[in-house]
Amino acid sequence: MRILVLGAAGMVGRRLIDRLLAEKTIAGETIGAIDAFDVVEPQIAAPEGVEIHSSAGDIADAATVKALVAKRPDMIFHLAAIVSGEAEADFDKGYRINQEGMSHLLEAIRAEGENYRPRLVFTSSIAVFGAPFEEKITDTFLAAPLTSYGTQKAICELLLNDYSRKGFVDGVGIRLPTIVVRPGKPNKAASSFFSGIIREPLAGEEAILPVADDVRHWVASPASAVGFLMHAATMDTDVLGARRCLTMPGLSVTIAEMIEALREVAGDAVANRIRREPDAVIEKIVAGWPRDFDAGRAESVGFSADKSFSDIIRAHIADEAARG
Amino acid sequence: MRILVLGAAGMVGRRLIDRLLAEKTIAGETIGAIDAFDVVEPQIAAPEGVEIHSSAGDIADAATVKALVAKRPDMIFHLAAIVSGEAEADFDKGYRINQEGMSHLLEAIRAEGENYRPRLVFTSSIAVFGAPFEEKITDTFLAAPLTSYGTQKAICELLLNDYSRKGFVDGVGIRLPTIVVRPGKPNKAASSFFSGIIREPLAGEEAILPVADDVRHWVASPASAVGFLMHAATMDTDVLGARRCLTMPGLSVTIAEMIEALREVAGDAVANRIRREPDAVIEKIVAGWPRDFDAGRAESVGFSADKSFSDIIRAHIADEAARG
Repeated sequence: MRILVLGAAGMVGRRLIDRLLAEKTIAGETIGAIDAFDVVEPQIAAPEGVEIHSSAGDIADAATVKALVAKRPDMIFHLAAIVSGEAEADFDKGYRINQEGMSHLLEAIRAEGENYRPRLVFTSSIAVFGAPFEEKITDTFLAAPLTSYGTQKAICELLLNDYSRKGFVDGVGIRLPTIVVRPGKPNKAASSFFSGIIREPLAGEEAILPVADDVRHWVASPASAVGFLMHAATMDTDVLGARRCLTMPGLSVTIAEMIEALREVAGDAVANRIRREPDAVIEKIVAGWPRDFDAGRAESVGFSADKSFSDIIRAHIADEAARG
Repeated sequence: MRILVLGAAGMVGRRLIDRLLAEKTIAGETIGAIDAFDVVEPQIAAPEGVEIHSSAGDIADAATVKALVAKRPDMIFHLAAIVSGEAEADFDKGYRINQEGMSHLLEAIRAEGENYRPRLVFTSSIAVFGAPFEEKITDTFLAAPLTSYGTQKAICELLLNDYSRKGFVDGVGIRLPTIVVRPGKPNKAASSFFSGIIREPLAGEEAILPVADDVRHWVASPASAVGFLMHAATMDTDVLGARRCLTMPGLSVTIAEMIEALREVAGDAVANRIRREPDAVIEKIVAGWPRDFDAGRAESVGFSADKSFSDIIRAHIADEAARG
């Protein structure tokens, strides 16, 4: 089994590769090689028995993508993307990486011909949905994004469905909730503060909260995200019919509930490190985001998520301890 | 007022130009010039006072589209497309014309810079919807196309929304019902027979009906299609917010009701010229198409359609008489 991971240096990509290397098999087969690709070369320690081929490049370059696909990976995870804030600020770059990158990938797979039909797991986003919403967004609600990032993800979903319907690829698209708690530094995503208000206080630092306490959001842990990817890679896709893209299950929590869980898990001193500093730009972006979902379709085909926000915080603390 | 019509040689394009030339003004301004473009050069008699510039070319060629937009038309009607049957048979051609053509158009408009923001009316299709459906498809139902044509139209809608949201263009997308009765010859669209079973019997010829009598479909007349375009070109777009694409109103009729209307308007002898010859391929395609809509949003912003199928047939007979 050969596996290609696009976006392998990112937070979710690194965790996915850790999980693949820990499991050593997937879908009942031994993992023989992993091609790890990103815009910067992924740093992965090669364990015994698994070839790791790390490389760096631009997925907006068709020849680069073609060379990766020419190795005929059995499974492809496409996690590479420009995040929402950057795609909104740099219109051309967002379309180039987020949309053309996917087109190149699908075309490269199709060009390999009839005997090649890999499983392709694509990470989409709840940013494909835009206000006004249903109270709980169902699986038949329209994609009406309010950002270029969401537009690009929605276009990729349509392409994934069509290329799968035509038999060129065996695609599954998973719309990830906002991933909380992301480790490391804040990034350019407008959603970055959802992790920041947990991560920074736990690390003894002050965190800025740019939106109101009653803002509700849809979140899942990094471990859940990896679980979604693993299930999407191995599930029976016949049950999906022509609709290959699914809203993943998650937790619908308010900022107040997140802070209350932080207080419960880590105490008042930690929770009090959150400083309220409203930011009209971020408030406006977040107001256009979905807050709650009925992810019944994904649950019915075996996807499952975190049970409580306290659990998410505890998992983050355990991860940080493991990283030293 | 300068107007660009892409797809000006097609049935709807020709009728639109006839209407523009008859009205002489649009949105309160005199029409000074019409640029009429298609894959074959449109043949239009230039009336006094209006410049007609007809040309032929390939909208999948970016430079061709750029040259058309460089004339800075105040309004653009983008009707050019490969029809559903052909887009399904020729995957590359469908994406090239239907998706890349739209991308070239939007990019050419954006490249003109901040002082240029034309009204762009784009003809989408109810083919953006795919089974399973709601009984009546509402304005918040997901686009889940079951053809490459529908996928391409859905991608164009997302792009039109995003470019409009960013202020690069002032777009309105209208999802046309199946247009019945199309004059002339059958085309490669899988929906061609919906016109054929009315048009051919009225012309004294036999028509093949490839699907069952209880098949229900969503239709509008050519005159209604032109009315939708005119309203989309002149309406206040502020009321649309970020959702610039609308399902147009239409009539939900069964084949049996269509034939009954034909019998009522033209008599038994005409209606009996329809021969039933089921075609499994067409039946399968049509089974994936929507049958009925609640087009409340379009109606609320002033779009209106035909009142009965008998009226549609009578309008077709009058049109044919006028054409001699």
